[in-house]
Amino acid sequence: MKPLRNVPLRGCAASLELAAEPIVRAALLEDIGHGGDLTTEAIVAADRTAAARIVARASGIVAGLPAASLAFTLLDDRVAISIRIADGERVERDATVAEIAGPARAILTGERTALNLLSRLSGVASATRRLVDLVAGTRAQIVDTRKTTPGLRVLERYAVVCGGGRNHRFGLDGAVLIKDNHLALAGSIRAAIAAARAHAGHMVKIEVEVENLEQLREALAEPIDAVLLDNMTPAQLAEAVREVNGRILTEASGGVTEATVAEIARTGVDVISAGALTHSAPALDFSLEIV
Amino acid sequence: MKPLRNVPLRGCAASLELAAEPIVRAALLEDIGHGGDLTTEAIVAADRTAAARIVARASGIVAGLPAASLAFTLLDDRVAISIRIADGERVERDATVAEIAGPARAILTGERTALNLLSRLSGVASATRRLVDLVAGTRAQIVDTRKTTPGLRVLERYAVVCGGGRNHRFGLDGAVLIKDNHLALAGSIRAAIAAARAHAGHMVKIEVEVENLEQLREALAEPIDAVLLDNMTPAQLAEAVREVNGRILTEASGGVTEATVAEIARTGVDVISAGALTHSAPALDFSLEIV
Amino acid sequence: MKPLRNVPLRGCAASLELAAEPIVRAALLEDIGHGGDLTTEAIVAADRTAAARIVARASGIVAGLPAASLAFTLLDDRVAISIRIADGERVERDATVAEIAGPARAILTGERTALNLLSRLSGVASATRRLVDLVAGTRAQIVDTRKTTPGLRVLERYAVVCGGGRNHRFGLDGAVLIKDNHLALAGSIRAAIAAARAHAGHMVKIEVEVENLEQLREALAEPIDAVLLDNMTPAQLAEAVREVNGRILTEASGGVTEATVAEIARTGVDVISAGALTHSAPALDFSLEIV
Amino acid sequence: MKPLRNVPLRGCAASLELAAEPIVRAALLEDIGHGGDLTTEAIVAADRTAAARIVARASGIVAGLPAASLAFTLLDDRVAISIRIADGERVERDATVAEIAGPARAILTGERTALNLLSRLSGVASATRRLVDLVAGTRAQIVDTRKTTPGLRVLERYAVVCGGGRNHRFGLDGAVLIKDNHLALAGSIRAAIAAARAHAGHMVKIEVEVENLEQLREALAEPIDAVLLDNMTPAQLAEAVREVNGRILTEASGGVTEATVAEIARTGVDVISAGALTHSAPALDFSLEIV
Amino acid sequence: MKPLRNVPLRGCAASLELAAEPIVRAALLEDIGHGGDLTTEAIVAADRTAAARIVARASGIVAGLPAASLAFTLLDDRVAISIRIADGERVERDATVAEIAGPARAILTGERTALNLLSRLSGVASATRRLVDLVAGTRAQIVDTRKTTPGLRVLERYAVVCGGGRNHRFGLDGAVLIKDNHLALAGSIRAAIAAARAHAGHMVKIEVEVENLEQLREALAEPIDAVLLDNMTPAQLAEAVREVNGRILTEASGGVTEATVAEIARTGVDVISAGALTHSAPALDFSLEIV
Amino acid sequence: MKPLRNVPLRGCAASLELAAEPIVRAALLEDIGHGGDLTTEAIVAADRTAAARIVARASGIVAGLPAASLAFTLLDDRVAISIRIADGERVERDATVAEIAGPARAILTGERTALNLLSRLSGVASATRRLVDLVAGTRAQIVDTRKTTPGLRVLERYAVVCGGGRNHRFGLDGAVLIKDNHLALAGSIRAAIAAARAHAGHMVKIEVEVENLEQLREALAEPIDAVLLDNMTPAQLAEAVREVNGRILTEASGGVTEATVAEIARTGVDVISAGALTHSAPALDFSLEIV
Repeated sequence: MKPLRNVPLRGCAASLELAAEPIVRAALLEDIGHGGDLTTEAIVAADRTAAARIVARASGIVAGLPAASLAFTLLDDRVAISIRIADGERVERDATVAEIAGPARAILTGERTALNLLSRLSGVASATRRLVDLVAGTRAQIVDTRKTTPGLRVLERYAVVCGGGRNHRFGLDGAVLIKDNHLALAGSIRAAIAAARAHAGHMVKIEVEVENLEQLREALAEPIDAVLLDNMTPAQLAEAVREVNGRILTEASGGVTEATVAEIARTGVDVISAGALTHSAPALDFSLEIV
Repeated sequence: MKPLRNVPLRGCAASLELAAEPIVRAALLEDIGHGGDLTTEAIVAADRTAAARIVARASGIVAGLPAASLAFTLLDDRVAISIRIADGERVERDATVAEIAGPARAILTGERTALNLLSRLSGVASATRRLVDLVAGTRAQIVDTRKTTPGLRVLERYAVVCGGGRNHRFGLDGAVLIKDNHLALAGSIRAAIAAARAHAGHMVKIEVEVENLEQLREALAEPIDAVLLDNMTPAQLAEAVREVNGRILTEASGGVTEATVAEIARTGVDVISAGALTHSAPALDFSLEIV
Repeated sequence: MKPLRNVPLRGCAASLELAAEPIVRAALLEDIGHGGDLTTEAIVAADRTAAARIVARASGIVAGLPAASLAFTLLDDRVAISIRIADGERVERDATVAEIAGPARAILTGERTALNLLSRLSGVASATRRLVDLVAGTRAQIVDTRKTTPGLRVLERYAVVCGGGRNHRFGLDGAVLIKDNHLALAGSIRAAIAAARAHAGHMVKIEVEVENLEQLREALAEPIDAVLLDNMTPAQLAEAVREVNGRILTEASGGVTEATVAEIARTGVDVISAGALTHSAPALDFSLEIV
Repeated sequence: MKPLRNVPLRGCAASLELAAEPIVRAALLEDIGHGGDLTTEAIVAADRTAAARIVARASGIVAGLPAASLAFTLLDDRVAISIRIADGERVERDATVAEIAGPARAILTGERTALNLLSRLSGVASATRRLVDLVAGTRAQIVDTRKTTPGLRVLERYAVVCGGGRNHRFGLDGAVLIKDNHLALAGSIRAAIAAARAHAGHMVKIEVEVENLEQLREALAEPIDAVLLDNMTPAQLAEAVREVNGRILTEASGGVTEATVAEIARTGVDVISAGALTHSAPALDFSLEIV
Repeated sequence: MKPLRNVPLRGCAASLELAAEPIVRAALLEDIGHGGDLTTEAIVAADRTAAARIVARASGIVAGLPAASLAFTLLDDRVAISIRIADGERVERDATVAEIAGPARAILTGERTALNLLSRLSGVASATRRLVDLVAGTRAQIVDTRKTTPGLRVLERYAVVCGGGRNHRFGLDGAVLIKDNHLALAGSIRAAIAAARAHAGHMVKIEVEVENLEQLREALAEPIDAVLLDNMTPAQLAEAVREVNGRILTEASGGVTEATVAEIARTGVDVISAGALTHSAPALDFSLEIV
Repeated sequence: MKPLRNVPLRGCAASLELAAEPIVRAALLEDIGHGGDLTTEAIVAADRTAAARIVARASGIVAGLPAASLAFTLLDDRVAISIRIADGERVERDATVAEIAGPARAILTGERTALNLLSRLSGVASATRRLVDLVAGTRAQIVDTRKTTPGLRVLERYAVVCGGGRNHRFGLDGAVLIKDNHLALAGSIRAAIAAARAHAGHMVKIEVEVENLEQLREALAEPIDAVLLDNMTPAQLAEAVREVNGRILTEASGGVTEATVAEIARTGVDVISAGALTHSAPALDFSLEIV
């Protein structure tokens, strides 16, 4: 079995652990409240130990096991977790993804927090993998958006990577993305890009959202790094890709579903971004069983 | 139009505002990062004002407008928000739920954080309302579970109420709920209940999860307040309800979907709890348009 | 001697440790300030070790030793504490409750914070035990109230349990308790209870405060779980208990002292709540001696 | 009536408000929990307003009204508080100390937090005033110690000032105080003082605790600012005061009660410190009445 | 005079205010400590008002006035500040940059915190402007580095912009910058770039640090966005610029001082980064005078 | 080599570690951002280990190595640091001050945060030592002021001690220091001192700032502990020292530089305070090299 420390975390590092710890701690405190785990403390003796396993109730892609494990170890660092199916790997229904042993109270008290994190992140990873598999053979990469759960963006982006996707900018400070509302205030695409270039540092990329070919041509006349083709039909996307002709990166967004993603990918866009990966992915069900 | 202060918040009060403020502040900081909103600050002058509206992109139940509004007012308290369709009310596709006016930067910078909150909470409220409507005419109440998004439980429970649902215990300290894993360690239902009663204060209710009639009878022999009938068929549920005969409250859980909930409700259970309300409800899409 | 990890914490668990850590850390920072322990750092070399004992200066019930121990281990995890008289046990004057060994600076710097916690919590436990002993032989349980020290409620409730008492609801979200000020705004007991039942989830108990038999009868006509008999004479309490006749739980409050508690208990009430346990219990004196 | 802003706070200033705000906010969150004020939110409409008064249930010295008021205004800044008897003034039983008006929910939800703070701090102020009155006519000042409630030191020291007392050093970084445990490790009084003088900055005072005249003479041979005469009889204190002869400040501690303080003061000591002011002062009872 | 709200903040926005508030609050608490401003509270009555001005003691570029103003308004929101010389403008010795009026205590207590921020940030802006002026007429931009004061990066980067400079990546998550230590572990420039491209999202720029022309050519063979020419002589820089020939952005770093920057700029590099802007800029002296 | 735990920290103790930890953690999070260390995580495998050394790029006094070491160990507690030249000791250019071994990612990700702290604090210590050396042979002590970096005062004061200096009061609550702005509001020196003595506790020293001999004589007529001789010429200082004649402590401030400090010291003042130690000391350059 793989000890926790050596889990092959995709895109994960010391810095992720630093970010995950306060999230998990806050989630534990949210669940335990001020009054403590009334049921467990009444029924389970403080010195009782137990063994348990975390079992998938559906098949999908695992993501978040190290973060979920913190729910137990923050309560009691004597809990030991052995990971059998690591983040980024596929799990089949009823398979065990981790085995847990240690003080019984910590296992029972941490159970729901751990499962809530694991189920949500694995849901994101599984939704991502479905799109990734559907665009296999094309040049398109599946990427996330800023439509993430408030407070969980760092973990959800990690889950997207576990599912084989890539990350868009983390937030508003990660890159310039000029959207329709900015254009409404800027007057013109040209003016907006000029302002962005005058303001942004030399390490900041600039992307512009366009809704039609006319806007695309206006944007292409300026020095930008990428173009976001929003809510275009596959035919429009294909024409836009031809127009761009490899000079800058092309991103498609809007209406991206499992039903449409393959056709979008075949238009030749470099990147397909899908908000649903993080705002509407159903959880992947896991349960914890005392053994 | 309704000024923000007077929104008829269902289940909402000063205490919810106290809880929501740090959540929204953290979400803003997560999106803005350390570097600030590079695009808006480059393109939009500091003294520019704007008007905008938040428009539903699908029909459903609104929830979270006051919390979402904080995303603007925490950035700049000169932003004014007028709510047209309040939390708990139904919105039709393309209807405007709120109008916003004030400094343009704050509106653009707060947009994504506000929409992320509003979309998620309205998704929860809408999913709840669908179940609530399906059980209309029965005695069953639709309630949430602890399968909530880490960090957002207080808001998601509020959204469930906006959708017409009711709340289960907030967390582990809200009531005793003896589940299968507790029983695995306690030895017997009787011993578990005895320990819980010896430990819990006089204002704490005790509920026991049972999986069959035998366990149900064992539980009914003890002084408890409610029984959780887990993963039973409608036939089993109906028999359990007869067995309980109104002495304590009955709760059904497991396999609750829009396809099954009506039949479950017709068994006569008092409460139906559904984790999917909070762990798998798809977001209700909203957008913000500068006008 | 008992190692810290195995202290038989009554009502205490991983969740209590999670709650106690920030309290003790904040107390240490409050005492140490920004400038550090000027005296110890000047006089005691960094590599000096020492042994010490914590001695009771009066007899009573011990509570808070694990929390107090954190004052040393948060400063230096090499400090070892051996508990001789555990939480919930009686200590006699001049007896040693714990032995400490490790870096001398951490022992001296943590001393006051540790003693402040231990003395206060043991004072609460001792005051509780005095009432508990006085009602021995009756059915009455001694319980706490929300009249606790701001910031220390979780620890003071634990101390009440160490003293043999029980806990009332933790706070405003733990149960419904309709008091006189609510009734002043609700119009009638009946209307207040109806509103509470329509609002509260199925796991929430409802208690109503009454001041006379007329109010009691009005309350008993509604479906509630408990009644708070406030500021009644023993004769009135006895009559109220007869009126209730075991249908719901009865709680007496108001004027509960060591002089009155036995007579109150003999009226047959189930629960006696006393704010003085937490707002006016004198500290139990302890000192730390370098040996 | 005195508006809140103009309360003549003794020893209080903008800096106290800065310190009190997080204490009161944390106390509110502790009481409200995650679930909100179930009773008030069920029974009292969001737009209901009310008037109330805070009434003393015993006579004593008021302290903490501005801090207590924050419990209401942090919940809803529309609550208005008019102070009738300000901090530091005497209140008689059944007198009104403040009148409150505004949204009813905020008044009811904040009630317990406000009263807990006000009762505790007024208890400290009242206990202080009793000692201060008992030493009237002597040179002795009554001062506090570091035996304060964890987390509330800044407020309790303020309450001591409201009661007519003075403040000892705030914490370990406020001055050097060489106590018995330091001497046990330092070898000699002389060595300890030398180390302290070599370490402490020029704005730091040095006090030494002595238990007998021999130690006193040893300390007086070194350049120190004050001497703590610990657990001495009045006769010993008087002799110590003669020995010091005004060269440095003298402080008496140990066994200071209302029964002994006058005799201690008559020995001529400059300062009498009493831990009981903060660790064992009974609360002064207040209640809030809706009018 | 310019009201605070309308100060033309260069690169500053609502998001900066959100970031600055906790920094200023923490700085105030650091200075005020637990015990409060002993001097001001003793000497100045609570209801005393005063007027003051902030005066430059040397000439330079102003930066940080809005942040510094928070030191007063966080203490008492009745303090009014009128800015006469705004951020980014030049101030001459003895000129008044701001006028302040309001409660005297808040002005005196906030003085040092305000001046510490203003002096440091204006020092950074002034040092930046000196370099910017020295490279006038060349294509070179002066940019900051990550060698900032721990905790103040967001403000120091703002000060660099006030001085006419530009910002490098905010931190490790803002862009890829492959430095010598990365190359030591990666084996080759090619392998490092390949790994970075496989890992980074499509909105992330990649820059590589090279120390000689050989490394430069190796880097230029890969698809990167910028090259950091580290510690090269002007002659080497000029040759590197010729080699790059405008294909990617060139950045010079190492040994950048007021004596060398002009010659470096004349080599034709696009960007010159200087750690000394933030780690070694002397403060620009300001004082506050009661008028 | 010296293991970290035994570094002879001058003026440093458990309490400093408690204060440094949140500073270093915040600095790490500031640098790593939400997105993580993109470069290191892409290029360096999670299980890669490395060895490195921290090398001085100029000679000076080391300060802050234990704090800087936290930047590595907070990321990964498997990083081991061996200190070769401890805080307070002199380092020559190109000498190694510490050796580091452990997971390569933590070393690379923590590098800049560690160096930023070490360089700044060593810069402060080195500037202090230069002044201390220049006043050798006189009675004058070099002390810091409150002109420190917001958020870093506790560490910068420690660095001053490492450089051989002493500490002034930590902040506004550490002592009374009556300055010109206080006098402007107090009316007279006499009134100001009287108010301070009436307000401050018995462990608080009182210092008065004077600008000429007339003010000095007025101050000397009152019972104070120290006098701050501000912006006086050496001749004035000498006369002031004669006037004081050892009755109280004398402090010189204003215009203290390496050029003037020796002459100031020869006037016989006890203490010389210099804001430039903390607001304008250039960083001492260090680098980290993978070996």
